[in-house]
Amino acid sequence: MATPASPPLSYGVLLFPGFEVLDIAGPIECLSTLTHRQQGSSLTLAVIGRPIDDDHPDIPMELTPADPDPTVLGFSFQSQQVYKPTHTFATAPPLDMLLIPGGWGNLPPTKAAPEVAFLKSVYPSLKYLLTICTGSGLAAAAGILDGHRATGNKAVWDRLTSFGPKTYWVAHARWVVSGNIWTTSGVSAGTDGMIAFLASVYDSQLVENVVNSMEYNRQSDPSKDPFATIYNIEDVPPKE
Amino acid sequence: MATPASPPLSYGVLLFPGFEVLDIAGPIECLSTLTHRQQGSSLTLAVIGRPIDDDHPDIPMELTPADPDPTVLGFSFQSQQVYKPTHTFATAPPLDMLLIPGGWGNLPPTKAAPEVAFLKSVYPSLKYLLTICTGSGLAAAAGILDGHRATGNKAVWDRLTSFGPKTYWVAHARWVVSGNIWTTSGVSAGTDGMIAFLASVYDSQLVENVVNSMEYNRQSDPSKDPFATIYNIEDVPPKE
Repeated sequence: MATPASPPLSYGVLLFPGFEVLDIAGPIECLSTLTHRQQGSSLTLAVIGRPIDDDHPDIPMELTPADPDPTVLGFSFQSQQVYKPTHTFATAPPLDMLLIPGGWGNLPPTKAAPEVAFLKSVYPSLKYLLTICTGSGLAAAAGILDGHRATGNKAVWDRLTSFGPKTYWVAHARWVVSGNIWTTSGVSAGTDGMIAFLASVYDSQLVENVVNSMEYNRQSDPSKDPFATIYNIEDVPPKE
Repeated sequence: MATPASPPLSYGVLLFPGFEVLDIAGPIECLSTLTHRQQGSSLTLAVIGRPIDDDHPDIPMELTPADPDPTVLGFSFQSQQVYKPTHTFATAPPLDMLLIPGGWGNLPPTKAAPEVAFLKSVYPSLKYLLTICTGSGLAAAAGILDGHRATGNKAVWDRLTSFGPKTYWVAHARWVVSGNIWTTSGVSAGTDGMIAFLASVYDSQLVENVVNSMEYNRQSDPSKDPFATIYNIEDVPPKE
């Protein structure tokens, strides 16, 4: 086996109002478990989002499809849960790897214009990018996926792929690697993609220990995707 | 098939400093996806935790094993992420079902004494209880698992099971149902347990739609648990 590449040390997660919490909870759990398993490791994770002010101190999690307006803190639940940004777009630290979750808040990505602008500016300095679910729509809207192969959420396939007319969208994929860009399918697929990424830069036994600690039934074949069949979708080649 | 039982309408999640976010992110995602899929449904979720004061306004997520003190907001990450409690133990609303995640913060459960006291008082009024990971240790410490079969995190099996000397601890189980108590194995197993619970009270096609929306590779056989084998653990019968 080839020597693993140098693992990222500084991670960031790009959050927008209405992100899907499970999209990032799985991948972040992989990282936190990794630090537990590897004594002395010192990964950092910056939570990057819109400028904080008194009216919007935090980034609200999931929105319902019926409430696509990020200012509506509805849901059926008794309170909106939030993540606390550690950095704004202006103060984001240098990052080795950025994670982008999906969620109703970025469909369509025009809702997330400041996030798209940030992505355009930060991508050239990244070693790796990982998108989960409709996060690939955000990356596509930023032009980052032009000329790349990619995947994403299968339930909103037509809408998602429309944001990347210069991208080859792969239907039957749990995740896709194209250059330094990892795109994963919907929601739960982010965990499989993150594990596969870690296995590409860390010792395989260490990653196996992480998976076992999480008691996670990993899917390790990226081409196996029952949901593409369930949603009856097909590849979408570039239109331009 | 028998008519499904009446589904819970009011859910609560019991959080303690140092809970494991993925333990509840998966099960909560199941509920939020269910409300998306079932128009007009109005589930509520109360986030219940220690009394809020100016010094401790939120409930911090995961702690490292090296920082078992809930007041240490360490981690390798750049900021402690939090959940916002909606209710204290004194103001908790009536609940049909309570979810209890695991996490370093409840090992040993004496660290979580106020949570244990709350559990003792609230359990008789619940229709269902679901624990994830070391959450079953908390339930055991409250005496709720006495005379029941249960499971939990496999990596800390000896320590976990020591908190429930009157419980039959099942090693090879992704989840266990005993009366109105559902206990699941570590971390990721909570999602499989929650899905199985929903399938017991909702129409099976609706639950299948939820699973597909989450693009989740569900494990539907509760007796299939590769992690019990990996950690080489065995059943622990009651000692008393």
